[in-house]
Amino acid sequence: MNINIPSSPLPRIVIIGGGFAGISLAKKLKDKKVQVVLIDKHNYHTFQPLLYQVATGGLEAGSIAYPIRKIIQEFPDFYFRLGRVNEIDTQNQYVKTDIGELHYDYLVLANGSKTNYFGNKEIERNSMSMKTIPQSLNIRSLILENFEQALLVDDETERNAYMNFCLVGGGPTGVELAGALAEMKNAILQKDYPDLNIDNMQINLIQGDGRILNGMSQNASDEAEKFLTKLGVKVHKNVRVMNYDGRTITTNSNLTFDSATVIWTAGVQGAAIPGLKSESITKSHRIRVNEYNQVMGYDNVFAVGDIASMETQSFPQGHPMMAQPAIQQGALLGENLIKKIKGQKMKTFQYNDKGSMATIGRNKAVVDLPHYKFSGVFAWFVWMFVHLFSLIGFKNKAVVFLNWVYNYIRFDREGRLIIRPYKKKSFTAFTTDEV
Amino acid sequence: MNINIPSSPLPRIVIIGGGFAGISLAKKLKDKKVQVVLIDKHNYHTFQPLLYQVATGGLEAGSIAYPIRKIIQEFPDFYFRLGRVNEIDTQNQYVKTDIGELHYDYLVLANGSKTNYFGNKEIERNSMSMKTIPQSLNIRSLILENFEQALLVDDETERNAYMNFCLVGGGPTGVELAGALAEMKNAILQKDYPDLNIDNMQINLIQGDGRILNGMSQNASDEAEKFLTKLGVKVHKNVRVMNYDGRTITTNSNLTFDSATVIWTAGVQGAAIPGLKSESITKSHRIRVNEYNQVMGYDNVFAVGDIASMETQSFPQGHPMMAQPAIQQGALLGENLIKKIKGQKMKTFQYNDKGSMATIGRNKAVVDLPHYKFSGVFAWFVWMFVHLFSLIGFKNKAVVFLNWVYNYIRFDREGRLIIRPYKKKSFTAFTTDEV
Repeated sequence: MNINIPSSPLPRIVIIGGGFAGISLAKKLKDKKVQVVLIDKHNYHTFQPLLYQVATGGLEAGSIAYPIRKIIQEFPDFYFRLGRVNEIDTQNQYVKTDIGELHYDYLVLANGSKTNYFGNKEIERNSMSMKTIPQSLNIRSLILENFEQALLVDDETERNAYMNFCLVGGGPTGVELAGALAEMKNAILQKDYPDLNIDNMQINLIQGDGRILNGMSQNASDEAEKFLTKLGVKVHKNVRVMNYDGRTITTNSNLTFDSATVIWTAGVQGAAIPGLKSESITKSHRIRVNEYNQVMGYDNVFAVGDIASMETQSFPQGHPMMAQPAIQQGALLGENLIKKIKGQKMKTFQYNDKGSMATIGRNKAVVDLPHYKFSGVFAWFVWMFVHLFSLIGFKNKAVVFLNWVYNYIRFDREGRLIIRPYKKKSFTAFTTDEV
Repeated sequence: MNINIPSSPLPRIVIIGGGFAGISLAKKLKDKKVQVVLIDKHNYHTFQPLLYQVATGGLEAGSIAYPIRKIIQEFPDFYFRLGRVNEIDTQNQYVKTDIGELHYDYLVLANGSKTNYFGNKEIERNSMSMKTIPQSLNIRSLILENFEQALLVDDETERNAYMNFCLVGGGPTGVELAGALAEMKNAILQKDYPDLNIDNMQINLIQGDGRILNGMSQNASDEAEKFLTKLGVKVHKNVRVMNYDGRTITTNSNLTFDSATVIWTAGVQGAAIPGLKSESITKSHRIRVNEYNQVMGYDNVFAVGDIASMETQSFPQGHPMMAQPAIQQGALLGENLIKKIKGQKMKTFQYNDKGSMATIGRNKAVVDLPHYKFSGVFAWFVWMFVHLFSLIGFKNKAVVFLNWVYNYIRFDREGRLIIRPYKKKSFTAFTTDEV
């Protein structure tokens, strides 16, 4: 079955994925002489850098997501289809999806990355990940469900396990989540559960090598660790998680953790789709592209964002899997596709590193600019300003701002409704067979 | 297993349900010499009058719900437990729940009402109801999923069925939902689905007797019908739905509807819990109470709100199942329980009818006050004002206000993310076996 798209004399560009890269590309193509079909498994764009605030109740999901159909509403000859792409047929120029097949003239893979468990199925089964809005809402529900459950058990070890949150991976996601959980502990859980001893709540951040935020400066790592420790987070460095059976984390040292909640942020991998030559796929399932984001070995197939691995001298493993390279690659590819269609020479991609930052909590952030590194209150304001203005849509900006002001003044988080229960089972009943 | 609650020398009042009645009661008991345990299957209070706006994307769920733990945070000797009550043992004064058993000295049933399908299992299986936040989010997802699905089908009859929304029951819920759907059609669906002919979208409101809003004045019914018709809703009066197999609605007349979406608001019934004497339960599963909201035949068991049927001369079938009687009964029972514990005489309940209202859409509402009935723009402002100020919490009020202003100015609704997909199946594949 073919996906119905009105026929057009213009060349059809099919974009898979409405993340930072896909949307940035789409915006560049809006008034060009092409037909564009955007396919995504969600009907919304997710502002991933703030997912951790959804998971910890600081923001509602709707504030950091934006309807894709609304973004492309005014773009002529643009179509959106809600679907999951299963395979690519580069021979006949078709994508095969769960809603049918679609012919393309140019194909752009912008479908991002997914959590990497490095092959450990047991960890994958028992731990949470936080790459999407539904996953973030699951984490939020689970945190609250754990506390409700802790109230019901008599055994202290079991009760403490419900209040022990282990975050594996000390990158920006793990660090920001750890800080937000610590603030959630003080702002909400302390007050909402007066009949529990909240001092027994533990937040463990487990990092495999010698420093957290190891993609940032030494200064940022040190400051972030200081901030986290001050908030009560236990930072474990040079500790590698070996397994998690749903009950106990084992590591490469004597350290073990009894925990009902493990959030895995220790790795990402490309979400490569079957159908490309195996030599164009890297070990971490990204797609090898040249300096025009053209997939190695294909003329009309491109990849941008997390999924694209453009191996350069400065980035032998490809660019970092973050918003900035995705946005910049998407925008340039928009220009390049038009050039290519017109038979002009494409421009090569140059990554403009604007720096990176992470927030740890109230008045606490670290910022690495190319020539200037700082932390503390000012960094926190910079972080907020940059994130607020990067959100799509006036209303999302306004609502997020209102929430941040409210949360700041009131030391509160209102997103603590268990609307979609995640799981409710006795901790002692956890077995490795359960999914 | 007993539910752990710290022991107390004070008498324990167990309240089942954190709706309007339960919360109104809890607030009255906050500084009294009693221990209170509130049990609800959700950890939030729902402002039900605005559920229809969640279903149609005008508001986020978090804006009309409020964490119960936050309401009772400051109340001494108050406990909340997240659980579902399965049975009451009045002999031994226990409630039996899915999280254990709990002894009570006084029991208050405030667990509201549920949808009444009048025994038709096929309608129950195939149609949507809208009594809770998850149900409202399911409706929202289904509306959007239907439109995504309509894009994929070739057959016109099938496509139109995906765009045919049938609301059974012309009470306030059906009327408000019909109006909001009509506005959603113009505000969102028209723009978001340029490749569908939105003129084929139908909204049918089906009412069993001779007028919609039959609990309000004739004037309100007439005006509401006029407003709905103007918005493009087809109002069918004196039509009774006989069945819906997931594909076709059959009625007591020649009229049939091919529709993928039936929302059933044609009846409510009490959510009576097993364990009470059968003579204290009415035909519609409400619980018979005397003028003190005391359950017939029991000294220490009470019922308030939708579930309570206080049969008086003015209300031979009990009070209307709406917020006002619930709030008033809850508040009075708070005083009466204290009187009873002190051995004083309880006060009889007198319902103060403050009137009723319904909104149909932008600038369109009907209001019946005891001595004055009006409709139109002013009624709409009154409706908004009353609902805004009835919401719990400053932030919910602010966010709802912001959304309403935004929606009004921009003719927009941003709540159109399919975060929890409801169902995705081919309309032609509907069978009566599917649940």
